[in-house]
Amino acid sequence: MGAQRVARVAVVGYGYWGPKLVRNFAEMPEAELSWVVDLDQARLGRVSQHYPAVQTTADYDAVLRSDVSAVVVATPIRTHYRVAKAALEAGKHVLVEKPLTASSAEAEELVDLAERRGLVLMVGHTFVYNAAVRALREIVASGEIGDVYYVDSARLNLGLFRTDINVLWDLAPHDLSILRYVLQREPVSVSARGSANVTRGIQDVAYVEMRFPGDVIAHLHLSWLDPCKVRRVTIVGSRKMVVYNDVSETEKIRIYDKGVERPYETDRFSDFHLAYRNGSQTIPYVTVPEPLRVQCEHFVRCARTGERPETDGRDALQVVRILEQADSSLQNGGARQPLALFRDTTPIALRGEKPHVYAN
Amino acid sequence: MGAQRVARVAVVGYGYWGPKLVRNFAEMPEAELSWVVDLDQARLGRVSQHYPAVQTTADYDAVLRSDVSAVVVATPIRTHYRVAKAALEAGKHVLVEKPLTASSAEAEELVDLAERRGLVLMVGHTFVYNAAVRALREIVASGEIGDVYYVDSARLNLGLFRTDINVLWDLAPHDLSILRYVLQREPVSVSARGSANVTRGIQDVAYVEMRFPGDVIAHLHLSWLDPCKVRRVTIVGSRKMVVYNDVSETEKIRIYDKGVERPYETDRFSDFHLAYRNGSQTIPYVTVPEPLRVQCEHFVRCARTGERPETDGRDALQVVRILEQADSSLQNGGARQPLALFRDTTPIALRGEKPHVYAN
Amino acid sequence: MGAQRVARVAVVGYGYWGPKLVRNFAEMPEAELSWVVDLDQARLGRVSQHYPAVQTTADYDAVLRSDVSAVVVATPIRTHYRVAKAALEAGKHVLVEKPLTASSAEAEELVDLAERRGLVLMVGHTFVYNAAVRALREIVASGEIGDVYYVDSARLNLGLFRTDINVLWDLAPHDLSILRYVLQREPVSVSARGSANVTRGIQDVAYVEMRFPGDVIAHLHLSWLDPCKVRRVTIVGSRKMVVYNDVSETEKIRIYDKGVERPYETDRFSDFHLAYRNGSQTIPYVTVPEPLRVQCEHFVRCARTGERPETDGRDALQVVRILEQADSSLQNGGARQPLALFRDTTPIALRGEKPHVYAN
Amino acid sequence: MGAQRVARVAVVGYGYWGPKLVRNFAEMPEAELSWVVDLDQARLGRVSQHYPAVQTTADYDAVLRSDVSAVVVATPIRTHYRVAKAALEAGKHVLVEKPLTASSAEAEELVDLAERRGLVLMVGHTFVYNAAVRALREIVASGEIGDVYYVDSARLNLGLFRTDINVLWDLAPHDLSILRYVLQREPVSVSARGSANVTRGIQDVAYVEMRFPGDVIAHLHLSWLDPCKVRRVTIVGSRKMVVYNDVSETEKIRIYDKGVERPYETDRFSDFHLAYRNGSQTIPYVTVPEPLRVQCEHFVRCARTGERPETDGRDALQVVRILEQADSSLQNGGARQPLALFRDTTPIALRGEKPHVYAN
Repeated sequence: MGAQRVARVAVVGYGYWGPKLVRNFAEMPEAELSWVVDLDQARLGRVSQHYPAVQTTADYDAVLRSDVSAVVVATPIRTHYRVAKAALEAGKHVLVEKPLTASSAEAEELVDLAERRGLVLMVGHTFVYNAAVRALREIVASGEIGDVYYVDSARLNLGLFRTDINVLWDLAPHDLSILRYVLQREPVSVSARGSANVTRGIQDVAYVEMRFPGDVIAHLHLSWLDPCKVRRVTIVGSRKMVVYNDVSETEKIRIYDKGVERPYETDRFSDFHLAYRNGSQTIPYVTVPEPLRVQCEHFVRCARTGERPETDGRDALQVVRILEQADSSLQNGGARQPLALFRDTTPIALRGEKPHVYAN
Repeated sequence: MGAQRVARVAVVGYGYWGPKLVRNFAEMPEAELSWVVDLDQARLGRVSQHYPAVQTTADYDAVLRSDVSAVVVATPIRTHYRVAKAALEAGKHVLVEKPLTASSAEAEELVDLAERRGLVLMVGHTFVYNAAVRALREIVASGEIGDVYYVDSARLNLGLFRTDINVLWDLAPHDLSILRYVLQREPVSVSARGSANVTRGIQDVAYVEMRFPGDVIAHLHLSWLDPCKVRRVTIVGSRKMVVYNDVSETEKIRIYDKGVERPYETDRFSDFHLAYRNGSQTIPYVTVPEPLRVQCEHFVRCARTGERPETDGRDALQVVRILEQADSSLQNGGARQPLALFRDTTPIALRGEKPHVYAN
Repeated sequence: MGAQRVARVAVVGYGYWGPKLVRNFAEMPEAELSWVVDLDQARLGRVSQHYPAVQTTADYDAVLRSDVSAVVVATPIRTHYRVAKAALEAGKHVLVEKPLTASSAEAEELVDLAERRGLVLMVGHTFVYNAAVRALREIVASGEIGDVYYVDSARLNLGLFRTDINVLWDLAPHDLSILRYVLQREPVSVSARGSANVTRGIQDVAYVEMRFPGDVIAHLHLSWLDPCKVRRVTIVGSRKMVVYNDVSETEKIRIYDKGVERPYETDRFSDFHLAYRNGSQTIPYVTVPEPLRVQCEHFVRCARTGERPETDGRDALQVVRILEQADSSLQNGGARQPLALFRDTTPIALRGEKPHVYAN
Repeated sequence: MGAQRVARVAVVGYGYWGPKLVRNFAEMPEAELSWVVDLDQARLGRVSQHYPAVQTTADYDAVLRSDVSAVVVATPIRTHYRVAKAALEAGKHVLVEKPLTASSAEAEELVDLAERRGLVLMVGHTFVYNAAVRALREIVASGEIGDVYYVDSARLNLGLFRTDINVLWDLAPHDLSILRYVLQREPVSVSARGSANVTRGIQDVAYVEMRFPGDVIAHLHLSWLDPCKVRRVTIVGSRKMVVYNDVSETEKIRIYDKGVERPYETDRFSDFHLAYRNGSQTIPYVTVPEPLRVQCEHFVRCARTGERPETDGRDALQVVRILEQADSSLQNGGARQPLALFRDTTPIALRGEKPHVYAN
């Protein structure tokens, strides 16, 4: 099958993310934004005002019957499964905002369905399409920082509070997709603790601990309730340390040539024989094209060519499984939950290869 | 009994902290630094060079038999108990570097001994004598930030690795003394996780969670293995948020007039009815005299007058008890340990009163 | 004359600023963006792609004959005069990008022409429409910082180098409009020094000194050749100091309650009798709507109602006069040039009043 | 003549700098601090308390008759000449706080006297002994940043106001010694402007422009009246840019691999053909031992061996000459003053060689 010239795209949901997606697809030469679907007429009115050429409707079924080849799902999370499933059943390629679904059972069903139908199922793990995250992965993969000792991540801000999901389901998909992509490993266990300070039953602060193979620990601090906007990942290695600061305009990545040498074994009790290294810091120049644009372009290319997305359904499923176990831990006092993520083939994002084309 | 004119002081241990203590006592008019004790002759030589008037010795017993009225213990932690006990038995007032002892049993014994003998037993929880911490306590106590929701603390740096104790015993005493002092509450449970990356069996990174009465959670990140020096406490309240950044010279305390209002109850499922407040930030001017000096002066006054120290033995004991339970959790996969800290009377530092004079 | 319902707008020039202006007018309900004019067909093609409803042409005269009521000039500076004059002669209201013209003679002619014809002539001194600058003016006007001692401004970056004008004509219009607006005074003299490091004859670094009534000195550092992006204005007053940092997202304005009291007169030679004040810092919360949008909306309102713009032609003329004298000083080794700016009535932006409606 | 085992040192003046000097000489094995001289008995009492072994006196002549070999002058600037001259006439090596004297005539006389007598005359240009400044000089000298385009320096703070000299004489010696040392060139002209905001006749804010051979401009901003403490030197080169930030603990030097290529000549008027480079930033690790200690040790070595100091009398004289001309410009509206600094041999600090030993 040859690649389609353009992908005809429908965007479903015009709330918080929808407008950003619509803008990107509207500006993309390889895409033709045909439809925007929402139940709210006022929102559809805004679409028509800005994009007179785009059709709007509250009737999703009509769109599924149309000739669009790709559906983008930006509805509330609890509806992801239903909206995406209908699209796949109608033979459309699908991009779903993160997290893919509200449960791993739903995610598994979508993955199976997409694979059976030979359709693209992609999730919007936007940070995987962020050039700074890609640089971070290269730095770690190159061995420059040595063995990874531990990872500490903080994703904090005041707001946006959500009432349908807690801070874990809202923010952890970012860290889970980043860390798995950068470390190229799947975690083997997870635990989480947190508290619901503002809305009863909705945790707005959470601390997550994940263990990865090779004794690597990753710790996440997630909060909707912090005075400062923080989006920072610190990776401490045996040779160097690297910080990815997404909030900075000019210093996304900083590499610290510093560390401590493991002491050689001695047969007597000793005080200090650790050797500290304290070298220069380097801030590589990283240009970051809008990650959402890169993501949308990737989806359009996959939809046109059948290429397997870097953040495909299986990748999304792993994230939902971890979220599910983390949330279970969070509701149960922080007990550590083992993860069994390797039943499936390793998602493409973890394989360290260039994405390749689906055989279908 | 009237106050002594000056306190004659001996400092035991001239390693890392010893020289700082010696400098402070040497410069203090109300103290007369009489002796420095260390087993290492080279160190004692350095004392003699800088302070020709101070006597030096490796014979601790001789010092205990001398007319010094106060002994300052800056030896390795595992020896605190033995050195402090001997001093108390010799009728000396005692200041011990933090943590007071390596176990709560040892700490209890010292507390009992000091109380029976009517002697001052003080621990060097230096941050309690830090003017920024005192300002933080006042801000919280005044109600300005509303109810405390949660506390997040980070104490990170590269080095100084220790081989006798892990990062928890090394750094957590600071946070435990700060948080108990600022919140004026004792924690009811603690859990800790961490990893030993450099030296087998010595955790160099730890995450601690404490629960305080009133559903307040405090989370500590402690690390000897981070590229950046961080000493930050964030307190999120229902009305405002405050950050104490000890590393900053000019912005120790910053108050953020921002927050989220708890939503009123409605009988229907709603999307967003949270009201965000985003007001000004204030950085009060805080002059911070050297906390170690303030601490040493407090000890000298207590030794001269019999006044009870703000960080007395009972305060120190509480910290050791929490450390013990946290370490137990750390060695056991992070299980949450209940704390029974209130068997004793509340330490003075938690009572929100002015320190008063011992009746003895 | 009643206000027009909408202003029909033509934008002339679709280079660097043009697209930003077009986007704003396209999104504004009170404006109808009718035409975009440019000599470059490729650029016009991009307009048509994004805004199919907008007409494009290289024939400016045709647009002047059309029913547009307002023309926005975003062409190279040397053409401002010619393009704006033609528009005014055709009876159109005009908004010109800063600086208004390449010489004060040209500016005077445009001002006269607009006033004779009763048309709006406005210049795009965008920072006057920046909420942080308005807050700065209020802070100074309120007397909170006391008497203004001096102002130091830095506007630095790497690039964008221009080959038609030097850094003074490029960047100083920002500072001149900001300072005159904030201080509500006109400078009485100006001097400038600089150097042309990259392109012969085009200064890329300049230092400007202006003297204002009341012994207030303002100093500007302008550079296209600095490693850091800086846009900072510091105003030192007799009671407080305030910094406006346009680059910061969260701390646009910071007020420092610090200063030095002028010493009382004594009849003997004395060492130090200055009293330093060092109080809190305050960062007021300032929401900054896109200044270009505010500016464009202001122009549309003025074009519809005949209201006099805050940055009208006379305001623009003063800036061009200062630029002219500063450039003259720059080309002559930094000699101080007196300024005679008050021949005209004070521009509205300096009057500290609400803008009022033109009588015409 | 062989080197003396230790230098016997007298410190004259125990005001602001004196105690710092005394501490350093007291701790230095190669020095024997014999005397501290001050007219104020209370100050001398403080010396005796801290340093019982040091003799104190108000009788400077007695000290000059004693066997001290080196005199350190930390008195008010107007007395430097007299105090230093007496010491040289008594055959003592002399270190004088910066600036060396209040006039170039005085400085010339001291230089002549020291050279005739074969004595060390050194000035306390402390920053020359700062490891970060030395690193900066190496970076520039290595050619890494290409040709130097311009230098911008800011030295700002609130206080310490002085009543004997203006901000130029107080702060500019730092910049003058740093820039001459780093650029290894002498300026050819200087101009200065400023204002006296707090104390009549004492400028507290000054802007200085210096021209160096090779069309290099250096601009200094000096202020006692700024809300922020700034000590920053930016050097823009044709290939890279470097910032020396003395206030930062961890980032004293930052090298920016960014710049603009000079355009090739074309025969037609063109828009933009500049190529921007935007590469990585590097923060070399620089350990900075206390510069005052390094300076004092250097003086002691010179006093013991007769080695010529890096900041000798001729170096100090050049700085005083520039200050004198800059101050003249400051008092005369900013006129540019030519400098004739090369009458003497180039001072050692400008020669790019290792310091060598005096032939005497």
